[in-house]
Amino acid sequence: MSTLKSIIDRGSITASIRPKGAWGYTMGSIKVAINGFGTIGKRVADAVDAQDDMEIIGVTKTGPSFGCDLAVKKGFPLYCTFDDAGRIAAFAEQGYECKGGLSDLLSVADVVIDCAPGKMGAGNLAKYKAAGIKHIFQGGEKHDLTGLSYTSCANHAANLNAEGTRVVSCNTTGLSRTLVPLYEHCSSLKVECTMIRRAADPGDSKKGPINAIKPVLKVPSHHGPDVMTVKPEIEINSLAVAVPTTIMHVHSIIADLPEGHGLTTESIIEMWKEQPRVIVMHGEENRITTTAEVMEMARDIGRKWGDLHEIFVWEDGVKLVGNRLYYFQAIHQESDVIPENIDCIRALMGTETDWKISVAKTDASIDAYYNL
Amino acid sequence: MSTLKSIIDRGSITASIRPKGAWGYTMGSIKVAINGFGTIGKRVADAVDAQDDMEIIGVTKTGPSFGCDLAVKKGFPLYCTFDDAGRIAAFAEQGYECKGGLSDLLSVADVVIDCAPGKMGAGNLAKYKAAGIKHIFQGGEKHDLTGLSYTSCANHAANLNAEGTRVVSCNTTGLSRTLVPLYEHCSSLKVECTMIRRAADPGDSKKGPINAIKPVLKVPSHHGPDVMTVKPEIEINSLAVAVPTTIMHVHSIIADLPEGHGLTTESIIEMWKEQPRVIVMHGEENRITTTAEVMEMARDIGRKWGDLHEIFVWEDGVKLVGNRLYYFQAIHQESDVIPENIDCIRALMGTETDWKISVAKTDASIDAYYNL
Amino acid sequence: MSTLKSIIDRGSITASIRPKGAWGYTMGSIKVAINGFGTIGKRVADAVDAQDDMEIIGVTKTGPSFGCDLAVKKGFPLYCTFDDAGRIAAFAEQGYECKGGLSDLLSVADVVIDCAPGKMGAGNLAKYKAAGIKHIFQGGEKHDLTGLSYTSCANHAANLNAEGTRVVSCNTTGLSRTLVPLYEHCSSLKVECTMIRRAADPGDSKKGPINAIKPVLKVPSHHGPDVMTVKPEIEINSLAVAVPTTIMHVHSIIADLPEGHGLTTESIIEMWKEQPRVIVMHGEENRITTTAEVMEMARDIGRKWGDLHEIFVWEDGVKLVGNRLYYFQAIHQESDVIPENIDCIRALMGTETDWKISVAKTDASIDAYYNL
Amino acid sequence: MSTLKSIIDRGSITASIRPKGAWGYTMGSIKVAINGFGTIGKRVADAVDAQDDMEIIGVTKTGPSFGCDLAVKKGFPLYCTFDDAGRIAAFAEQGYECKGGLSDLLSVADVVIDCAPGKMGAGNLAKYKAAGIKHIFQGGEKHDLTGLSYTSCANHAANLNAEGTRVVSCNTTGLSRTLVPLYEHCSSLKVECTMIRRAADPGDSKKGPINAIKPVLKVPSHHGPDVMTVKPEIEINSLAVAVPTTIMHVHSIIADLPEGHGLTTESIIEMWKEQPRVIVMHGEENRITTTAEVMEMARDIGRKWGDLHEIFVWEDGVKLVGNRLYYFQAIHQESDVIPENIDCIRALMGTETDWKISVAKTDASIDAYYNL
Repeated sequence: MSTLKSIIDRGSITASIRPKGAWGYTMGSIKVAINGFGTIGKRVADAVDAQDDMEIIGVTKTGPSFGCDLAVKKGFPLYCTFDDAGRIAAFAEQGYECKGGLSDLLSVADVVIDCAPGKMGAGNLAKYKAAGIKHIFQGGEKHDLTGLSYTSCANHAANLNAEGTRVVSCNTTGLSRTLVPLYEHCSSLKVECTMIRRAADPGDSKKGPINAIKPVLKVPSHHGPDVMTVKPEIEINSLAVAVPTTIMHVHSIIADLPEGHGLTTESIIEMWKEQPRVIVMHGEENRITTTAEVMEMARDIGRKWGDLHEIFVWEDGVKLVGNRLYYFQAIHQESDVIPENIDCIRALMGTETDWKISVAKTDASIDAYYNL
Repeated sequence: MSTLKSIIDRGSITASIRPKGAWGYTMGSIKVAINGFGTIGKRVADAVDAQDDMEIIGVTKTGPSFGCDLAVKKGFPLYCTFDDAGRIAAFAEQGYECKGGLSDLLSVADVVIDCAPGKMGAGNLAKYKAAGIKHIFQGGEKHDLTGLSYTSCANHAANLNAEGTRVVSCNTTGLSRTLVPLYEHCSSLKVECTMIRRAADPGDSKKGPINAIKPVLKVPSHHGPDVMTVKPEIEINSLAVAVPTTIMHVHSIIADLPEGHGLTTESIIEMWKEQPRVIVMHGEENRITTTAEVMEMARDIGRKWGDLHEIFVWEDGVKLVGNRLYYFQAIHQESDVIPENIDCIRALMGTETDWKISVAKTDASIDAYYNL
Repeated sequence: MSTLKSIIDRGSITASIRPKGAWGYTMGSIKVAINGFGTIGKRVADAVDAQDDMEIIGVTKTGPSFGCDLAVKKGFPLYCTFDDAGRIAAFAEQGYECKGGLSDLLSVADVVIDCAPGKMGAGNLAKYKAAGIKHIFQGGEKHDLTGLSYTSCANHAANLNAEGTRVVSCNTTGLSRTLVPLYEHCSSLKVECTMIRRAADPGDSKKGPINAIKPVLKVPSHHGPDVMTVKPEIEINSLAVAVPTTIMHVHSIIADLPEGHGLTTESIIEMWKEQPRVIVMHGEENRITTTAEVMEMARDIGRKWGDLHEIFVWEDGVKLVGNRLYYFQAIHQESDVIPENIDCIRALMGTETDWKISVAKTDASIDAYYNL
Repeated sequence: MSTLKSIIDRGSITASIRPKGAWGYTMGSIKVAINGFGTIGKRVADAVDAQDDMEIIGVTKTGPSFGCDLAVKKGFPLYCTFDDAGRIAAFAEQGYECKGGLSDLLSVADVVIDCAPGKMGAGNLAKYKAAGIKHIFQGGEKHDLTGLSYTSCANHAANLNAEGTRVVSCNTTGLSRTLVPLYEHCSSLKVECTMIRRAADPGDSKKGPINAIKPVLKVPSHHGPDVMTVKPEIEINSLAVAVPTTIMHVHSIIADLPEGHGLTTESIIEMWKEQPRVIVMHGEENRITTTAEVMEMARDIGRKWGDLHEIFVWEDGVKLVGNRLYYFQAIHQESDVIPENIDCIRALMGTETDWKISVAKTDASIDAYYNL
């Protein structure tokens, strides 16, 4: 409960953890472009807007639609995903001011967050390089696209001043949050994870199954090893199934610690309670025994879209047996990567070298923004 | 789209639709007690807090729990649901300041919103009467408890200065929103409704069914006729089934208009677009073809909990054939009654006689509160 | 319960309701081809195989697959859906004996049951006409294809000796079973039906929604009026929604009877208990309150695939209020039309003029076949 | 495909694998009582009825209900679960012949299959011992009740001539089917399993969740270690979650083989294809990629209730990486233990010492019974 209370309180503490002048940049705020103002894009835009060291310089839409209203409401300049004059003009016909095409946007930004649908990565990368702009892709793209990946707690330092990178997927981000501190304590970690995945997002009514379990028959699955793109020292494999739910993934995890690790079930729980962006709560005591109650708590916390940026670990589902650790964690697939994108911007721009300070600033600013 | 845009814009218009001095009361703001700070209670408390003519004087919890943190965060004074000294003391043991029992709260309030679980109505009513306080029950209680019911658009005037009343259920509220303007145009209306109900709320993981349809075998069901507690002139019956979804109810409605009604499919759509708390959108054009997309839009609008106070009508699902009108509407079961409670407070306190002005003030204030 | 018991007992009574020689044909049994041995085709094939006045002369598959094993096991001759020599040869390569193409099959059959996927109706019709063979389409095709439709209880006589027809959909068949006897008693009937439809079949894991309700925005829907293709005198409209379940449709029905109908709730229940292929059971008393329990009862009855050929009406969900009748019925979408196809064969071949005798023979033979 | 074909063919081979006189008993058939003719009881009764070396001497019901019709239809003598004269008389009042109470049944039987609801084990055990009758409990009871457990492939020999035992749960049975042959090859096996469990059975409409994942917070869970009650040499732990589906459990399994095991992915697949009651099929090639398609195949096979007695392993989901084996299997929770009960009867009665012969006889007899 104390963990949760601290989250609720966090929004009211000052967001200025370092005095403004102490930040590692002297110019004004970082100018951020969002290429693709959809499910991820709109969330990242809000998170950028919440910070005092960066600002949204523009967002792209393929054409006039409901999402444009959201951008207008927020005061985010609108651009067209394409440079095509006809497509750009189509916005005005529907009463939206469109400031130009993607090229125009890239020319005024410091960094672009690529939130385009999958399969467009290679094409977009060429555009970003041509424009000489720093770029951040999402987990839908492969590591090979940029050869660099990012999670705040895993490899912030390795991303400092890079030209481009990739914020890893919701699942990889979630695994890193609990595994990296374990690894850093133990210096060795072998992990197996079964991912019980939501089959569709809440707003997606097309996909099934309605009444079935679908194993990912490529064994082991690609999900777990993706952690090694941000922390190569962790040995990890995974299996995955999709199930008829829309709200969260659950990870069922087995981690083998090396001899002499010196940890206990209790000390691991304490470690995670200290870890940023991890909520550890007792399921039975708090009557939070399924992902339904986890997401209901998220709605009470009050971020927009009912998002839960934190990974949820059931305290009473953690157990160290000999050197083998068992635990469950739940992942809000729509939002856990949002704050990572903010930290990643600071890494690429080289404005904050300490990941923990970036994380504290990011999170406090978001919570203040939403008046939590 | 224009309807939606106007909702998004609404929050930014001034909430002061009437100049402060022009309201029908001279004292300070209305002091509102919330008896039961749970699913409905926490939402009503926010809505009260958003208004400039009323304030939360206290909320009750049965004991220390997560909900207390929410109250503390908002600055709502905490009271115990019971007058028992031991139970009151239990709050302090968990670090919460509890200002007393229910009786203490009632003694300082002008009106109490009863958001207690079902079956407690009769007992609570006696307490409210003993305390000489105005009282508003929710739709879980029967009309007979107070002999008076309330929906903003149906019978605001009939509730003016009453001692106590009941805000009708989410379903009845939703039916009133579209049927009352039809009735007022036609002076006669015969309605049949099949209610396709969500089987459990999003945070409830206990109830099923997982893969079945459950008809309510009491035929006709009690749901439709409840409309007659607020608008007796509408003849209505209903059938109901529960289905494996958590997010919204859907109503499948047939309304028989009298000869000479003078309406068309288009004029009915226009009528509803003018009606407060009704959103009319084209499903195919906006790709909002199921309740999943409706609630996704609600998350984009951005009220806390992703709430949708408005009834959603699919424009392309409205059709007048002869004198028989067919249409579908979707109801967010957790929240459509929230703004009605605010208007109902003003009715009982006699501070606003015009329901449309109350509704406009309520809604604009809520949207400003959530910074939509 | 007595109704159910009679179904269970039915299989053990003699299937020879009329002495063999008394049937209206002198040649041997009717030779039936199944074009498309899939979900519907395999069920109709079993039902044909169960009768003593007809036989399966061949079934088609597009190529060698699991379904071929089922055909071989039953001893049904295998043909290729196409006349292409290469495709025909492909069967032998997988160890299946293929007797030829569709043309070969049509040349040895008296009647073909078209169980091909939708949209192939027009092309197939031309082939059947060219082969001079009688033909029966399924409800996926439109009435206009043949200009004639069929339901056992509605218009058997009108289909006698016809060249081709269409067995109507599962929904239309279900509506006819309860509405036709009502109409025949009353000579007038006006009906509104809301169809709560299963969104996908049990073996289909692709389709959603997982957590939503999807209204059919074409209002009124096409489902109800299709009843008028077999009984034009019934006035009927419908609304439809799809919900996240796989096992049954439910119909929520309102029927307006004419003045002087002379019926009561009880006499209507009795009428339906006498009607073939309708099961009327009390939900509360028998603890069959959802479609889950209805299909569980079907599994106990023991037909292959757990099929329920009968329409299920909840006795305690039937209520006549004035001249308006309210009731619910549940439809097993995969199988209620199966026995209709058998009766339809006899209609087209002119071998049984009395629909009730055909139905009794069909049903008793199927139940004996499955050893119920 | 060949595996499946062999199942379909199996029913038609002679059930008399050993000549009648060669069986280890000279008296007539074994007299089997079923105490509790419900979900499991009705299935076991059918399976007993299918054998030529045993027969149903009686089944119990708590009172007259639908299940009695099933028993009457099959010709199974009906007894009352209680010895109470009033309860026994209640059967006759509803037209059922009840031959007496449980004590009467136990006095004429050789062995009783306890299919009573959970928590009644201890009380029933006392009755069985008092009656001096052999007894078989189900997996809902704990191993400690009898101190002996049973799975055909794991420990048939250890159960020979025992007074009482327990057929393990559906999950434990399923794990044994694939793990025991692995263990027997390797002489050492360490296993971790995540169980993705169906939250409710198909006929149960009460239980949820509708849209959530529920981890079993007792970690590790009790499911896996239960395997050690039948094969103590296998080291195994498990984690479990419940998901919103009704049709099958899925196991996500990691097994560590010892050095020098000499197996390959291919040879393991071959091993399982030879193992009784395991179906190994390629998911992608056969379009059986979820449990929905697995159960659809089961319906095609045609056992009553669409049961699947076999464990289903996805061939393309098996992968040996070094000494670590990854695979998925699916379990039909309602029926995989049914044939084990038959083998277990022979073990307790001492009439068949070779588990493979018993299994072959059991399965062939069941398939012939259902005319597959």
